[in-house]
Amino acid sequence: MSQQFERVAFIGIGLIGSSLARVMIRDKLAGEIVACARTPATLDAVKSLKLADRVTHDPAEAVKGADLVVIATHLSAYAAVGKRIGDVLKPGAIVTDVGSVKQAVIRDLKPQLPSAVHFVPGHPVAGTEFSGPTAGFADLFRDRWCILTPLAGTDAKAIARVKTMWESAGMKVATMDPAHHDMVLAITSHLPHLIAYTIVGTANDLEDTLKSEVIKFSAGGFRDFTRIAASDPVFWRDVFLANREAVLAMLQRFTEDLTAMQRAIRYGEGETLERVLARTRAIRKSIVDAKQA
Amino acid sequence: MSQQFERVAFIGIGLIGSSLARVMIRDKLAGEIVACARTPATLDAVKSLKLADRVTHDPAEAVKGADLVVIATHLSAYAAVGKRIGDVLKPGAIVTDVGSVKQAVIRDLKPQLPSAVHFVPGHPVAGTEFSGPTAGFADLFRDRWCILTPLAGTDAKAIARVKTMWESAGMKVATMDPAHHDMVLAITSHLPHLIAYTIVGTANDLEDTLKSEVIKFSAGGFRDFTRIAASDPVFWRDVFLANREAVLAMLQRFTEDLTAMQRAIRYGEGETLERVLARTRAIRKSIVDAKQA
Repeated sequence: MSQQFERVAFIGIGLIGSSLARVMIRDKLAGEIVACARTPATLDAVKSLKLADRVTHDPAEAVKGADLVVIATHLSAYAAVGKRIGDVLKPGAIVTDVGSVKQAVIRDLKPQLPSAVHFVPGHPVAGTEFSGPTAGFADLFRDRWCILTPLAGTDAKAIARVKTMWESAGMKVATMDPAHHDMVLAITSHLPHLIAYTIVGTANDLEDTLKSEVIKFSAGGFRDFTRIAASDPVFWRDVFLANREAVLAMLQRFTEDLTAMQRAIRYGEGETLERVLARTRAIRKSIVDAKQA
Repeated sequence: MSQQFERVAFIGIGLIGSSLARVMIRDKLAGEIVACARTPATLDAVKSLKLADRVTHDPAEAVKGADLVVIATHLSAYAAVGKRIGDVLKPGAIVTDVGSVKQAVIRDLKPQLPSAVHFVPGHPVAGTEFSGPTAGFADLFRDRWCILTPLAGTDAKAIARVKTMWESAGMKVATMDPAHHDMVLAITSHLPHLIAYTIVGTANDLEDTLKSEVIKFSAGGFRDFTRIAASDPVFWRDVFLANREAVLAMLQRFTEDLTAMQRAIRYGEGETLERVLARTRAIRKSIVDAKQA
């Protein structure tokens, strides 16, 4: 592939940022890559992995002269990053991000960005339970969806360039309203993670003898939950807080449904249970058919 | 390996039963295999897969002269099976089972079995989301745990023979009190399945446009839940009802913990959230270390 951007700045370069940097290096999409991270450990890892031409801990330094800025920090850092880079961004630059919540990102970043900059919020829906630049790999995005949530009036060419970039990484790209994105992700990702974390926490609080056997005999179901619940705690803290309204709304629905199941078990209502358990197979089949399994 | 039993009867031969039959055929553990199933479709599948020397729909016919009887039906069929075979079992025969709940199995079977028969309740902790004899495979059990819950006074040689059989299938074998087994499995398997089924059901009830996008963007977390929730509904109905007390006890703990998380999200208590999310990593590490991941 050919070069898409002269200078790309990554603000935050963990699992997602470093995977995208690897794609850019592999396909020579960027003339120059500048990486910004908060901790010396991350910067050292980026250097030894040769993921950037230059590294810095200062976001303002990183974005100077960049024609693409990719914000890939934890969500709680966005407002401060926006404040730091707002005055330094090159006119005509594109600012995009990889955050898992979009309304909060727009709320935190938009007011900080000058009108001469093109802001294209994005969310590559991909990941693993590992984090940091060493955990990244170029194929992370392959055949997954990236959701862009551009605001009304955003330059179509800027949106198209971000779309092309994610397509180069192997992603299918969809466009969506930010509030709708947050609701879809609340049920497909945020609530499953919240539940997985919670049940693993419940197991963690068991009496010691029971707990050691839970680990030993974890093959049936629980194991999958522990993998989900092994993800970065700060990342998920930020997601739950940033997408509070949608997560609470979906959690409320879930709790009602769980209470109905609890009641059916308590009163031995076999027919109710079987009916509820049977209908979930259809949605699994849809996912397998949609090649997302 | 050499022959362990002259005649083995399978009462029920789905995913688990047929996988064990495949092990027995591969390693020539049984002189003769008789398979009993309720539906002609299952019996036809067993015949065409050559999983048994004889097939029948009558449990009494199947167990005649067998020195090992493996009960592998849904849990709700155990009492009727016990009633049907009790008078026909060969003196000295071993009766074992593969049920996921052990107290209910003992309650339903034990009173039906003559004292000259050795009863060794067992639970190979292995499975997939698929069911039926075509879904089985001999390696299903490899490196997984089998839990035996023999009653006090059971013939040690009979227990040893069942243990050897599961070891031939590649399993590690543990012995446990039935009530303790039911509690461990409630948290490692039954509750995770109940939760997975419930959240997939919650998604299924969403408005149509949202639902279609949930399927499309299911990559992050939800996908794993749909796989878990694609398991056999009758199997799980029976498990939840048979292990009611332990499932309700663990569900109560989980609900308390989930409510605490909900409250922390609602009131923006970032420190509480991060602390809870961080401590689950340790239990994941224990599982990886125990080679159950």
